[in-house]
Amino acid sequence: MADYAAPVRDIAFTLSTISDIDDIVALPGFDHVDTDMVDGVLDEAARFFGEVFAPTNEVGDTQGAVFTDGGVVTPDAFKEAWAKLLDAGWISVTGSPEFGGHGFPKTIGLAISEMMTSANLAFSLCPMLTGSAITLLTRHGDDALRDAYLENLITGVWTGTMVLTEPEAGSDVGAVRTKATPNEDGTYAIDGVKIYITWGDHDLADNIIHLVLARTPGAPAGTKGISLFLVPKFLLDDDGTPGTRNDIETVSIEHKLGIHGSPTCVLSFESATGYLVGEENKGMAYMFTMMNQARLEVGLEGLAVAERAYQHAATYAKERKQGRAAGSTETSPIIDHADVRRMLMTMKAYTEAMRGLVYDAVAAEDRHLRSADPAVADAARDRLALLTPITKSWCTDRGVEVASIGIQVHGGMGFVEETGAAQFYRDARITPIYEGTNGIQALDLVMRKLPMHEGRVVAAYLDEIEGIDAALASAGEGVSDLRRELAAAVATVRKATDWLNSSDDVNARMAGATPYQEMLGTLAGGYYLARQAIAAIDLGLEDPWMAAKVATARFYAVNLLPKVHGLLDATIAGPDLLFAVDDDLIGASS
Amino acid sequence: MADYAAPVRDIAFTLSTISDIDDIVALPGFDHVDTDMVDGVLDEAARFFGEVFAPTNEVGDTQGAVFTDGGVVTPDAFKEAWAKLLDAGWISVTGSPEFGGHGFPKTIGLAISEMMTSANLAFSLCPMLTGSAITLLTRHGDDALRDAYLENLITGVWTGTMVLTEPEAGSDVGAVRTKATPNEDGTYAIDGVKIYITWGDHDLADNIIHLVLARTPGAPAGTKGISLFLVPKFLLDDDGTPGTRNDIETVSIEHKLGIHGSPTCVLSFESATGYLVGEENKGMAYMFTMMNQARLEVGLEGLAVAERAYQHAATYAKERKQGRAAGSTETSPIIDHADVRRMLMTMKAYTEAMRGLVYDAVAAEDRHLRSADPAVADAARDRLALLTPITKSWCTDRGVEVASIGIQVHGGMGFVEETGAAQFYRDARITPIYEGTNGIQALDLVMRKLPMHEGRVVAAYLDEIEGIDAALASAGEGVSDLRRELAAAVATVRKATDWLNSSDDVNARMAGATPYQEMLGTLAGGYYLARQAIAAIDLGLEDPWMAAKVATARFYAVNLLPKVHGLLDATIAGPDLLFAVDDDLIGASS
Repeated sequence: MADYAAPVRDIAFTLSTISDIDDIVALPGFDHVDTDMVDGVLDEAARFFGEVFAPTNEVGDTQGAVFTDGGVVTPDAFKEAWAKLLDAGWISVTGSPEFGGHGFPKTIGLAISEMMTSANLAFSLCPMLTGSAITLLTRHGDDALRDAYLENLITGVWTGTMVLTEPEAGSDVGAVRTKATPNEDGTYAIDGVKIYITWGDHDLADNIIHLVLARTPGAPAGTKGISLFLVPKFLLDDDGTPGTRNDIETVSIEHKLGIHGSPTCVLSFESATGYLVGEENKGMAYMFTMMNQARLEVGLEGLAVAERAYQHAATYAKERKQGRAAGSTETSPIIDHADVRRMLMTMKAYTEAMRGLVYDAVAAEDRHLRSADPAVADAARDRLALLTPITKSWCTDRGVEVASIGIQVHGGMGFVEETGAAQFYRDARITPIYEGTNGIQALDLVMRKLPMHEGRVVAAYLDEIEGIDAALASAGEGVSDLRRELAAAVATVRKATDWLNSSDDVNARMAGATPYQEMLGTLAGGYYLARQAIAAIDLGLEDPWMAAKVATARFYAVNLLPKVHGLLDATIAGPDLLFAVDDDLIGASS
Repeated sequence: MADYAAPVRDIAFTLSTISDIDDIVALPGFDHVDTDMVDGVLDEAARFFGEVFAPTNEVGDTQGAVFTDGGVVTPDAFKEAWAKLLDAGWISVTGSPEFGGHGFPKTIGLAISEMMTSANLAFSLCPMLTGSAITLLTRHGDDALRDAYLENLITGVWTGTMVLTEPEAGSDVGAVRTKATPNEDGTYAIDGVKIYITWGDHDLADNIIHLVLARTPGAPAGTKGISLFLVPKFLLDDDGTPGTRNDIETVSIEHKLGIHGSPTCVLSFESATGYLVGEENKGMAYMFTMMNQARLEVGLEGLAVAERAYQHAATYAKERKQGRAAGSTETSPIIDHADVRRMLMTMKAYTEAMRGLVYDAVAAEDRHLRSADPAVADAARDRLALLTPITKSWCTDRGVEVASIGIQVHGGMGFVEETGAAQFYRDARITPIYEGTNGIQALDLVMRKLPMHEGRVVAAYLDEIEGIDAALASAGEGVSDLRRELAAAVATVRKATDWLNSSDDVNARMAGATPYQEMLGTLAGGYYLARQAIAAIDLGLEDPWMAAKVATARFYAVNLLPKVHGLLDATIAGPDLLFAVDDDLIGASS
């Protein structure tokens, strides 16, 4: 199992060139943060997650979380790493100082999350979902709930979960049937069975705070009749410490393809005591307030697993010798073979392109939440709304692709589990599914995000991409291929965008949603790498690291970006061909 | 775990429209075979593999082959299915009648292999590799070896293996170090450690016949000094039955990502007795005579796992209800949602396209081996040579892609192992690796196959594809999109082909090999579906099955075929961008 060394330089460069971290730390509320501090934080986090978390990844996979009569048991290595994580305070980086957090921008929190997720994706889901619970409570909980629960969540003494899915309510959350019956004391009795509850039970913390979607008696049908409840594993005593066990049974955990270290629970609520968060019937609206955050974080998972798979494959390709590369008189490391090099460059280019997209989106979130200028905040909100489905879907699809390439680089060794490459391929496969499947993201992109402000949000984004043409022209012949390919790609994406935005046919737009999403993601990746290439040229190509940035952007532009042209026809074809074959001729009888 | 129902109608249609099975059974040596018989064989095989083999797939994965002190133990269900397979005679379909086989064309054998492989990929590898051993012995063994071993291999009483790989000799077979020292009695003492030996040990048969690559003393370096030996697990007594155990130790079996039912062995040969096959130092040349066959069979695996994953996903998508499709007033089966429909149509179109490619290639093999007309036989040999790397690589990459889509169709359920979709994703992942990685296939395609007869073989294939334009034009407006897209695609592929064939720069051609291979495979898939669409129109679209064939070809043409345009720039870019980033900036330090 190869080590993980956080790519601190690329993270810092992306924070600087894409997120504009100087601008972020200058936002209101971040007076205690400055750019120099950021560099120190990145170095320290890199050390911590490389040394403490990364070594837990393999045991998390092979031993995994285990379901016992006494609840879910995690590997000992997880317990030790968790204790060190709390000690070091990494879990509290973005939390509100009012409740024990450090109050850093989300952009910096994301950089740290990237490292944690590369180090151990399965494990990282526990603080990730706790973060979602914190967001919901902070924005929608009343003072009593916030005072009782927030600090212990922010400091990681307790953990949180998101309890949405039921057997008949997956992508269609509105079908939730779990009941919430008012008790006389103002609490609610929660009854129902919930599935796919990530970290729904474990032995790392003294309490688990479930945020549960349920229906009160007589609530309207569908999404408009869903309320949000806080349901702790242990009810709090008067002194605020965990006391009586609540009536929540862990029924089982799933036997999954990957992320074995993350217990995915079936939970049965049997008149469990719950506390209403906010107002009745607004549960779905509240969920949407944390949806962007959670979807960005899943997009980040695609990036993070790709980074680790890439490092793993590169290490192997430098060590493994086989055959002679062109022009060599002795056995070559396989990194010298053109097809292996193509695989590694593809992994590198996709990973760095994803980093640009994710770090741009999270910076928009900080600006949206913090900017004192309403115009900036509003524009950032719209940008985040547009980028969220692209980030979630494109980065998770690329994460699977990069992990699969990682196996291929290893040849036969890649198929042997002990090599470690296969774990990334298995772990990555959940990311295009959860937090809204990528098909759901595509519908969100095409049906809700493209039409925003009569299409002006996406038009502005495409204008921005086109707008770097002048800088690429100034940068000279060295990037003429990059300039040419980017211009061609944005023109093709604009055709698809115009077609979708001018079509009145809902079915036609839904039919083209998925290929369009891939088009826009592929273009975005090329755009961020191009911006980084321009910055690198400004900083000076005598530094090989800067020259590599330019070469990576050019590689992407010539080898990966042109895929957008192959997706145009599928995007604008309309629904007829999708539905031209009868159901009974799809599948077994065909 | 869903059942498997062999797609008999599509197999028969492909045999008819692509392989031209009437022409195949009319070849010399197939007097005992006619087309009516073929239909009966397909139906009977479909019943057998659906009922007897398909149910063993899950236990093969969960229980798997187990390494014990007494050797490798397979699941009981495998032993029962194997006995029934031998009883039914399916294993002997293509074997020579001289040695107990039924003497059917390889094209028909492949159709049966497709069903066996869809039913249980891991299990199918045992007869598949036995088939390779049979081919080698038939063509290169002397009478004594053929008489002693062939009949028991052809009837499946014994099984065979291919023993090539060593820790330092994978893709570079020429690095083999295993020694073969002549004994006084004309046999050889074989010494060395071999890895990745598929079905290298098991408890299904009384003997295992290993075909081993090794070096005799003083042999030339590299591939020119490798000889082929037959090394049985049990030496034969004078009466021809297995007697003394040979000195071959099963050291371990690999813990793999997938195909758990197939034991992948490390074998140690310790002065084991071996018999030279053919002449010394010609081992690699002999291996090449079975290489086309084995590579086609791995391509077939891509098709077969895709077919099963597709059936599995389609069954789920018809049963699972979630949300409301556009225009529906109640909860819809997810097959009605556009993005799920797109996934299923993509699975269907790729699977049927692969079937066309594989069945065309194997028909060329029959013509090459059997045609009385030397011009036909030679043209078929060249066609097979061209199609082999494309079939192996394109079908295995698509197999992985289709299996991954299959998980996505299942949503969260797809990530739960018990659903069965994940097994296909794990099993499929080996196929782009073994029997020559897909990168090796690309080099074979571009460096050896494209230059054949000064490029005339590939030119003839592209001409043939272009040549169906007239038939598509006659077929009318209903396939105008198919006609347009196919013409555009073949023009783009011709550009890439011309560039590669006119380039003197070896490095440039190697750099473009992988994207070119994907271009040619994608085009080939569209071509076979287009031919089937033309045939379906001739047969009459009042039959919904024929109308579905046309719709599937059109779907492919609009949604998948245009990918070739996105691969052109990568193919003709040359090597500079691949090698522009220094080794030390690839991987962990970047």
